[in-house]
Amino acid sequence: MKIKISDYPTFNKEWDKDKTIKKTKKMLKRIGELQHKMYAQNKYSLLIILQGTDASGKDGVTKGLLKYCNPIGLEVDSFKKPSEEEYAHDFLWRIHKLVPRKGITHVFIRSHYEDILVPSVEKYIAPEIVEQRYELINNFEKTIEHNDTKVLKFFLNVSKEAQKERLMERIELKEKHWKHKDGDWDTREKFDEYLAVYEKIINTCNTIPWHIVPSDKNWQKLYAVAEVVLKTLEVLDLKWPELITERFKTQEKDKK
Amino acid sequence: MKIKISDYPTFNKEWDKDKTIKKTKKMLKRIGELQHKMYAQNKYSLLIILQGTDASGKDGVTKGLLKYCNPIGLEVDSFKKPSEEEYAHDFLWRIHKLVPRKGITHVFIRSHYEDILVPSVEKYIAPEIVEQRYELINNFEKTIEHNDTKVLKFFLNVSKEAQKERLMERIELKEKHWKHKDGDWDTREKFDEYLAVYEKIINTCNTIPWHIVPSDKNWQKLYAVAEVVLKTLEVLDLKWPELITERFKTQEKDKK
Repeated sequence: MKIKISDYPTFNKEWDKDKTIKKTKKMLKRIGELQHKMYAQNKYSLLIILQGTDASGKDGVTKGLLKYCNPIGLEVDSFKKPSEEEYAHDFLWRIHKLVPRKGITHVFIRSHYEDILVPSVEKYIAPEIVEQRYELINNFEKTIEHNDTKVLKFFLNVSKEAQKERLMERIELKEKHWKHKDGDWDTREKFDEYLAVYEKIINTCNTIPWHIVPSDKNWQKLYAVAEVVLKTLEVLDLKWPELITERFKTQEKDKK
Repeated sequence: MKIKISDYPTFNKEWDKDKTIKKTKKMLKRIGELQHKMYAQNKYSLLIILQGTDASGKDGVTKGLLKYCNPIGLEVDSFKKPSEEEYAHDFLWRIHKLVPRKGITHVFIRSHYEDILVPSVEKYIAPEIVEQRYELINNFEKTIEHNDTKVLKFFLNVSKEAQKERLMERIELKEKHWKHKDGDWDTREKFDEYLAVYEKIINTCNTIPWHIVPSDKNWQKLYAVAEVVLKTLEVLDLKWPELITERFKTQEKDKK
């Protein structure tokens, strides 16, 4: 059945704020423990893809989610407009270079999905080429998972009103000016067009399913993302590696 | 005057543990704020180089130091034995590729100094080639600082006794087995030889000075490192960027 983004809330009225924040903190601590164990084991890796309109809070949820993680096993990359060199390659080239090696937890803020979104709405690439990218992405994501990389894809579902508030903050608060871009207001005028493309993406690039996350409030977004990440880590067969030694064999036997 | 490592404590008896931990927490929070501001400003960057014998606590101090930082502006790299491709290049090639871009705080766990340390002690490269590296490193570090990258170099000064305790933990505790390498015990037999090379490095590669940090206890090490990092960030001319806009000019004027 076709997924409709409009069926998903941008805000959940029935969630209790204090309880949710408490539960989230517990989950985040557990995520930190498991992330460290995954790093030590050096077998699995985790790729978290965050997509959403401007000001849907991708940066904020990244900071929150990784609060108790060990920075040694973390990578975060934010994909902007491709450089000249990147643009001269296929659209997955710059993405593939950055997929996590074993043990690593990697957050992509935006991703290869931008290469469907922007050209679909702005129409600067032939539609049939954009069309082919859906299948190329499905194949690409299969390749990554093939190497024990767990891929999690989130769409941060923010209402047009909440987006406006956040964009206004960037004009009003001096510590947020650096995030302001006039162009974001032009993009905002095409909010519904972008949403339509997102809907097509979510329904087509679904060999790895999408998680649609209520994103009007940061505490709801963080809870929803953390829940999926924790469940994923809990299911992986994470184990502390055995002691590998020739020298301390006796000591090891003594303990058994 | 020549710096002697043996003049520096591995543990400071007179430091009050509780007070130090409290002060450290405050400093770490402030480091987090400034790191975020540096990222927003996109002008300066910070390269933190951690050197020290095995089990001197480089990983641990990294995790502690970055606790309140925004992972979006962070990079951590741990330098191991060079790959075949790295080895086929000059010894600074793999290092240079990873120096931080503007805005970024980057921690190097080990660094180009390993390419003096290991060959000096293990003698698998001609001594005159190793000798030349001191000057090459000084020039290289000047190049990096030239681009508004602040370079901080730490030597984690751990006693031979404390090192033994930590190496033993890796054999005894199942969640530390993954860190164990038999070879670390061979290296330990050359503890004093390594220290002598460190002393030469500290006295020769000193266009950017070294910070020698008491490292027998984690809380002392973290305090000492955080203090230097915070002082460095406080001195940088960190500013929130101005609002750049054509569209919201009136609003901006209204506020003045």
